[in-house]
Amino acid sequence: MQIHEFQEMMYRLYFHRDSERGTIGTYKWLTDEMRELGEALNSANRAELEEEFADVIAWLASLANLKGIDLEKAALAKYPNRCLKCGHAPCQCTF
Amino acid sequence: MQIHEFQEMMYRLYFHRDSERGTIGTYKWLTDEMRELGEALNSANRAELEEEFADVIAWLASLANLKGIDLEKAALAKYPNRCLKCGHAPCQCTF
Repeated sequence: MQIHEFQEMMYRLYFHRDSERGTIGTYKWLTDEMRELGEALNSANRAELEEEFADVIAWLASLANLKGIDLEKAALAKYPNRCLKCGHAPCQCTF
Repeated sequence: MQIHEFQEMMYRLYFHRDSERGTIGTYKWLTDEMRELGEALNSANRAELEEEFADVIAWLASLANLKGIDLEKAALAKYPNRCLKCGHAPCQCTF
């Protein structure tokens, strides 16, 4: 599934709830999911880890919907198949 | 671009660097990007906000590469075009 399709799906499913919660509340929820992802990194439970990765990208898409940001367009502008700092793929930055 | 293609691009560009940094260092960097995204939410600078969204999904993909997680597969398993809690699209959960 394309990144923008995933974001659009999140819009269809949850934008009404995301709008009620608002930007600050949704960002707070995203940071909670980030914390849970951090905890799951040390877990032997693979399914739990997959769920936490899923939650972070899902809440990130919800937040992008609230701000009217096209996540795919933004991602490819900054990461256009090469490193923007050194110009190479793979990145050859020395710092 | 599909989610898995973006993750594969991040692998080609940065996996050698991500591997050297390791899981903990990469998660720490992801949390730094999350903080910057939070700060940019209040900024009037649209380009800056787009960059911060790009950085969070990029570092999330890098972390998923280190853990061998397929971000697209994980996302669609938990968000399969309907709400897994209530079964509806849009979500009709009442809590």
